[in-house]
Amino acid sequence: MNTLDQIARIAITSPSKIVLVVIDGLGGLPDPRTGKTELETARTPNLDGLAKKGVCGLVESLGPGLTPGSGPAHLALFGYDPFQFVIGRGVLEALGIDFPLQENDVAARGNFCTVDSKGVILDRRAGRISTEKCADLCQLLDQIKVDGLQPLVRPVRGHRLVLVLRGDNLHPDISDSDPNQVGLKPNDIVALSPEAEKTAAMAGEWMRKARDILADSHPANMVLLRGFSHHPRFPSMNTVYKLRPAAIATYPMYRGLAKLLGMDVIDLDDGSSIEEEFATLTGHYANHDFFFLHIKQADAAGEDGNFQEKVRVIEEVDAALPRLLDLHPDVIVVTGDHSTPAVLKAHSWHPVPFVLSSRWCRTDEVAEFSEPACAKGSLGTLPALAVMRLALANALKLTKFGA
Amino acid sequence: MNTLDQIARIAITSPSKIVLVVIDGLGGLPDPRTGKTELETARTPNLDGLAKKGVCGLVESLGPGLTPGSGPAHLALFGYDPFQFVIGRGVLEALGIDFPLQENDVAARGNFCTVDSKGVILDRRAGRISTEKCADLCQLLDQIKVDGLQPLVRPVRGHRLVLVLRGDNLHPDISDSDPNQVGLKPNDIVALSPEAEKTAAMAGEWMRKARDILADSHPANMVLLRGFSHHPRFPSMNTVYKLRPAAIATYPMYRGLAKLLGMDVIDLDDGSSIEEEFATLTGHYANHDFFFLHIKQADAAGEDGNFQEKVRVIEEVDAALPRLLDLHPDVIVVTGDHSTPAVLKAHSWHPVPFVLSSRWCRTDEVAEFSEPACAKGSLGTLPALAVMRLALANALKLTKFGA
Repeated sequence: MNTLDQIARIAITSPSKIVLVVIDGLGGLPDPRTGKTELETARTPNLDGLAKKGVCGLVESLGPGLTPGSGPAHLALFGYDPFQFVIGRGVLEALGIDFPLQENDVAARGNFCTVDSKGVILDRRAGRISTEKCADLCQLLDQIKVDGLQPLVRPVRGHRLVLVLRGDNLHPDISDSDPNQVGLKPNDIVALSPEAEKTAAMAGEWMRKARDILADSHPANMVLLRGFSHHPRFPSMNTVYKLRPAAIATYPMYRGLAKLLGMDVIDLDDGSSIEEEFATLTGHYANHDFFFLHIKQADAAGEDGNFQEKVRVIEEVDAALPRLLDLHPDVIVVTGDHSTPAVLKAHSWHPVPFVLSSRWCRTDEVAEFSEPACAKGSLGTLPALAVMRLALANALKLTKFGA
Repeated sequence: MNTLDQIARIAITSPSKIVLVVIDGLGGLPDPRTGKTELETARTPNLDGLAKKGVCGLVESLGPGLTPGSGPAHLALFGYDPFQFVIGRGVLEALGIDFPLQENDVAARGNFCTVDSKGVILDRRAGRISTEKCADLCQLLDQIKVDGLQPLVRPVRGHRLVLVLRGDNLHPDISDSDPNQVGLKPNDIVALSPEAEKTAAMAGEWMRKARDILADSHPANMVLLRGFSHHPRFPSMNTVYKLRPAAIATYPMYRGLAKLLGMDVIDLDDGSSIEEEFATLTGHYANHDFFFLHIKQADAAGEDGNFQEKVRVIEEVDAALPRLLDLHPDVIVVTGDHSTPAVLKAHSWHPVPFVLSSRWCRTDEVAEFSEPACAKGSLGTLPALAVMRLALANALKLTKFGA
């Protein structure tokens, strides 16, 4: 019996409300000059107050030492085992630009690259062409016709694009054309299972037509493709948890992921501020019993290696928190999907501070929201997969297992 | 390889003795007026002394956020994965009244209910008739004859009863007649797999005869059935652990569960005091190397929302503890099967205080037996499935794994 099935059997609907605030890339590492992480450095009286009232711990997405991407990290937080519920890279990229994928579409992640006269790859990123140039070239490629196929091409950012193959009986089990290194020619796309042969042939034909169209557009004179995948069918959060869930997120990838799990994604501008996200929560509070509020800016600052900016983002979240507290949800959870230490400029494997506050949370002695303080929390190091279960339990939305 | 197989390969017999004291529903939540849980409120010098000598932690039956019933919670404490070793509700109820189930019996949990003239359920508990009334009606129902079947009916308590179907080739895979809500008629009992069709038909015939017999016994004028199940065959604790285990428990359900795992269940009156349970342990101490001593009263007080009574029960256990200490067992474990906070009036998901004392336990700094103190124990939060292994290890009853 798998875990979601187990939960589905004991989940019940109730009027209680849960708010899950995910500060993307929240966890950090100390600035060597001060010995303090971003979260320790930030002035966070409201988060500290929540830690004092609530129960704390550290959350780990995939287990010790494993660094998750944003997709798996969020799936885990929502209780979907990322080793079982796999989202292909092509689909993830399509979700990231809010592309309306249809059930039988096959999506691939692509990049423009530079090849020499013999077709050998010189630069896998085509000199990092501008997003504008990428959009122009994608418009050209979007004109390609292949018998029995409707190929759709959309720009992402810089040299990156999405190719969506639309048609009957397509199968995603085909190989990448991207050899992942320079000095080689792009690989032929081949079927990895017999039922994918037609799809591989069509994708191959598309590749040859793209090469001909791009021949004179040096440095972006070829395209590499990888991660061919279908839109996955996951059980919805309503089916599993009996929730009416809503997502408040500004970045398309997280909105797409939320949609994939059946959340209602609330309309919000791409450039909305953290304050506006919390205001949106207030505006829609009556209509749902679960809210996923996603704050991207902390991760972006961490990736940029901008320690002070990440501190500032965390303080901005803290300043907006009273809006949430004023709603008096039955359960508040604040955590991150993974760590993005500014000193590392990348996602990392370090567990992430976690606080849950509810009437039934059995508080501990932690009175500060930070990595070292949460490490002393009575929840210890918690697998991310347990977060939804704990939130539901504290909202009294789970009945007991067995008599 | 499953865990019990692994343990069976390394378990050895030795003269050392283990006593596992399970205070049912031990874990609690703070009384909002004092900020202290039942266990923190109770005066427990002996349990505190044990915590000081021993090693502490918190035990979780099923994992974060999951609230176990008593059956799964105890199976986990005995090292049997409750997701793998499932006991049907009907069987659990039969165990609970010490009914001598045979291998091919199919047992169901039943309740008397009230139906109107059209057969629509008005009250699922028949106005909570007395146990005496229930016994009288069960005697009537016990007379029902069905071709090829020996149906047996026994009273449990109040409106509850057990129906046992005895016969050849019975199959438990049949549906409940209990629709679990008022305003509906009882469901027809149908086979959920082809091999259960004969059983479903027989159970249906029994239902019709029961209806006719009860027609004039308003408010208990109908019966609802659910949880049809077979007596499961689990490997015994002797097979797995090479123990000669004994159970000291006053409530039939726990005695039945102990029997199911091959424990010798020591004769004891239903109304025996905690002091008498410990005295029984002393009386039988020479004959076994593992003792499960079960104290039900703490859970009952928690379920009743009686904080002070739960405190009193815990103090009564503490007062009886010197009898156990005087026996100088090699390993003493005191814990609960789950939490039953009086403020929640129900089982809960909160992990349960745990102490293990032995010559080899590697003590920690915990010097008080309570939820917050045990949260700081060096065992951290321990899955209940690990309890038997730790106890056996500390009794030097497990050899090393691998060369």
